[in-house]
Amino acid sequence: MFGLMNDAPLLIADTLVHAARAHADQEIVTQTVEGPIHRYTWSDCHHRAQQLARALADLGLGFGDRVATIAWNTHRHLETYFATSGSGLVCHTINPRLHPEQVAYIVGHAEDRAILVDLTMLPLVQALAGKLPSVRHVVVMTDRAHMPDGVPAEFLCYEDLLAAQPADYDWPRFDERTASSLCYTSGTTGNPKGVLYSHRSTVLHSFAIALPGAFALGERVSLLPVVPMFHVNAWGTPYAAAITGTRLVMPGPRLDGDSLFKLMDSDGVTKSAGVPTVWLGLLQAMKMAGRAPAALEQVVIGGSAASRTMIEAFEGFGVDVLHAWGMTETSPLGTACMLKPGREADDKDARYATLVKQGRTVFGVQSKIVDPDGAALPHDGKAHGEVKVRGPWIASGYYRQPDDSAFDADGWFATADVATIDPDGYMQIVDRTKDLIKSGGEWISSIDLENAAVAHADIAQAAVIGIPDERWGERPLLIAVAAEGADPTREAVLVHLADHVAKWWLPEEVIFVDQLPLGATGKVQKTKLREQYARPAG
Amino acid sequence: MFGLMNDAPLLIADTLVHAARAHADQEIVTQTVEGPIHRYTWSDCHHRAQQLARALADLGLGFGDRVATIAWNTHRHLETYFATSGSGLVCHTINPRLHPEQVAYIVGHAEDRAILVDLTMLPLVQALAGKLPSVRHVVVMTDRAHMPDGVPAEFLCYEDLLAAQPADYDWPRFDERTASSLCYTSGTTGNPKGVLYSHRSTVLHSFAIALPGAFALGERVSLLPVVPMFHVNAWGTPYAAAITGTRLVMPGPRLDGDSLFKLMDSDGVTKSAGVPTVWLGLLQAMKMAGRAPAALEQVVIGGSAASRTMIEAFEGFGVDVLHAWGMTETSPLGTACMLKPGREADDKDARYATLVKQGRTVFGVQSKIVDPDGAALPHDGKAHGEVKVRGPWIASGYYRQPDDSAFDADGWFATADVATIDPDGYMQIVDRTKDLIKSGGEWISSIDLENAAVAHADIAQAAVIGIPDERWGERPLLIAVAAEGADPTREAVLVHLADHVAKWWLPEEVIFVDQLPLGATGKVQKTKLREQYARPAG
Repeated sequence: MFGLMNDAPLLIADTLVHAARAHADQEIVTQTVEGPIHRYTWSDCHHRAQQLARALADLGLGFGDRVATIAWNTHRHLETYFATSGSGLVCHTINPRLHPEQVAYIVGHAEDRAILVDLTMLPLVQALAGKLPSVRHVVVMTDRAHMPDGVPAEFLCYEDLLAAQPADYDWPRFDERTASSLCYTSGTTGNPKGVLYSHRSTVLHSFAIALPGAFALGERVSLLPVVPMFHVNAWGTPYAAAITGTRLVMPGPRLDGDSLFKLMDSDGVTKSAGVPTVWLGLLQAMKMAGRAPAALEQVVIGGSAASRTMIEAFEGFGVDVLHAWGMTETSPLGTACMLKPGREADDKDARYATLVKQGRTVFGVQSKIVDPDGAALPHDGKAHGEVKVRGPWIASGYYRQPDDSAFDADGWFATADVATIDPDGYMQIVDRTKDLIKSGGEWISSIDLENAAVAHADIAQAAVIGIPDERWGERPLLIAVAAEGADPTREAVLVHLADHVAKWWLPEEVIFVDQLPLGATGKVQKTKLREQYARPAG
Repeated sequence: MFGLMNDAPLLIADTLVHAARAHADQEIVTQTVEGPIHRYTWSDCHHRAQQLARALADLGLGFGDRVATIAWNTHRHLETYFATSGSGLVCHTINPRLHPEQVAYIVGHAEDRAILVDLTMLPLVQALAGKLPSVRHVVVMTDRAHMPDGVPAEFLCYEDLLAAQPADYDWPRFDERTASSLCYTSGTTGNPKGVLYSHRSTVLHSFAIALPGAFALGERVSLLPVVPMFHVNAWGTPYAAAITGTRLVMPGPRLDGDSLFKLMDSDGVTKSAGVPTVWLGLLQAMKMAGRAPAALEQVVIGGSAASRTMIEAFEGFGVDVLHAWGMTETSPLGTACMLKPGREADDKDARYATLVKQGRTVFGVQSKIVDPDGAALPHDGKAHGEVKVRGPWIASGYYRQPDDSAFDADGWFATADVATIDPDGYMQIVDRTKDLIKSGGEWISSIDLENAAVAHADIAQAAVIGIPDERWGERPLLIAVAAEGADPTREAVLVHLADHVAKWWLPEEVIFVDQLPLGATGKVQKTKLREQYARPAG
């Protein structure tokens, strides 16, 4: 027997309509690509999204068509999110840091019909001329005055498109399982794989991340998403901001520490979200200023693990850290790390031992850790195995790549992250399945070694890979970047590590480099390090 | 094209499973019916709900069967919520304050197969012996030691049932639209009508009420739901508490001001939710103590309007008020009243003019006000019309009463509440459609008059009804209860009112009574007042 409740579907357009009604005058601030700060409201955003939806329909784009965006976090990108998904199109966000050939592959694989592109990324699209056969329209996300010389005549101007349309539009109603957005994740092997979100998954995920136990969003929060809108929909923050009336401050292309500090400081940002790499820059700016941005209360750290050093640095400036975990396939929120009530009384080491964990699952996500045979492992904080998750905002497959072995018949997605789960439910990632180092039949966690290394004051960044070893199979190699002005020795680092890890975990060698190779999402590319340093023994 | 996301249904069992995993040791405290304080955890609750689900299955109850509860807010009632809905049964909560004949009608209409009943309400069930033909089992919600003498031998003991079962159970998976619970709402005319909630509507509503812009629930909140579990599922708080790991403090049968104060004070309650009638009692206890309960931060006021007097009284003790609106048909949350950012700077009168409003819609609920022809009225804060709402947790019909005129083909539910909506989206209920007074062709709001009356220091409670008038059609009559120790005069009250309302709104007469007649949900029964005072003119 079914309940007698309204069968209204969960649709992305409704999140914006809600914001425009209940939070009409809430501000959205953008550091534009063109230079000036732009300010308007959720009501304005709704009107312009309606104009854009009409314009896209006039271009002949129809239900289910994929529309690519290659753009920074700006008000225009935000409008594009809602205009595309809201009108039944699929918003396909593309990471501009990918190799142009990968971009061409992705556009072709998705069969994108149109591309909306920021001024700064226009050269990328122009360089791909003739290599994007599915694309019928390119829209440059700027106004007429900023359209560059020499742009092909057929390229359209975003503001011209909007100006030609009335600011009303009836958002269509359709099945909530309808595809809403598409994001390719670059695996270390093979071509990028597309994760195809639905309206349902997006709205449910918005609820989950907005809860007090996660990002705690609401109209008294000024949120600056540093995490790009081309990376897992900026962790879903645009939609969650709409359902909660959160004030948004969009950083545009300026993601360096000084620019972020300045924007946060001048514009009352209370909360921000991004990856550790970005926070290194912000912390540097905070150290220079001797303080945190004026209103900043909390940063959400995800994408890769937050070290104790980083958490302590933020706390030293009076800024809380929310450590979270997820991936493109998980929308992304899977776990968030908050101290359980009562744990505030823990001593310093115990407290940080908790905070460096990725945390407990949020409602909606089920998780387990399994051994190589798929058997569930105990939640004792010791046993480690591959993390599997499932729930309404976890992917069930990749776009046009059926039968990927990461997805099983029971709905579990195998993350390739290796973790422990303690009796209180706190998950801690110890490695990626492929990054674990197997030495003498035992596992060494590259992440644990990296965290121990960056806890040394003279080391800014560290990466550990396994190198082939005749006797042990593999042995760890530490590749480190010295802190500014510091000149650490191999010996000093090993002495430091010996205080933190088992003796047999100690790296065979320590190599100092000027910088680590970073991938398109800002993570260290261990594949490149392996190519360079992990040549077969002998 | 559909997204490629896991199709996991939204199920109530998962809310409890989540609480038991991520918030295993979070406490649930109960003032038991038997007397002592009972303490256990969400993990314990999960184990016992599993035992109860097994026991109910052993009694022959099957998917879709209705199981009645007649019980206070206790840990056993909480277990029953999850055990019934979680296993595919329908949890039918019955208001024990209804007339026994109405209870018999409701049980028969729902065809309840079993009744779980608290010790204190056992006499009600025994008095209905022979009048409940659908009922095969009666379970007394206590342990063997407390089973009263003279109870029929076939009545079962709750704790005996649980003790016979192992504490594991595989919660079944089914369509999220499956009926989960049933609550009858007593209209002023005709028989009570059943609202049949679904798993989907319940889980979505839980997300909505837990957001920072609504009840803001989380593991650092100790919530005491005064609103009974037999009244719109205690406003959905048990499920929302489970998804957020909120600590629950259950008041059992002791809802008087002194008992509530004592329980809140001794058990660290930070937040509570209930109707104004209850808060009058608590405020009285706070006045006696000269302070608020130690940790109390906020009360949620719903069910009927919160007056400025009441809001000021709580704020005077340092307790925030969240004014909210909803009804049985809306799960119930429709709107919540929070000051928009920036409005804290409003002067005192402007601030309270906002706070006495029912607030803005939460995400998921659409609302409009319409004239008698159904045409939408402007959101100008002046035009008033009947409130219509729709969304995923709004009813689409009544159980086994098809084609009720309150529901239209577009999914709108006509609430019979009359309201204005201002340009910022704040809704203010001005009356029930049937309680508006039409005088000389113009409307007088009985609620506005009542609020103005209780703002007089010598008046504790007030009700205004229309009395027939030959010249004007109707004229208002004020029926008031004097504050303790006060002896207000008719003239003083009219002089006071003249400062607050238009002259033609002034009541024809003021009648002082010792108490107002209250219905089963604690609201003033205007029908009774009309029977007594509003005899036809002439």
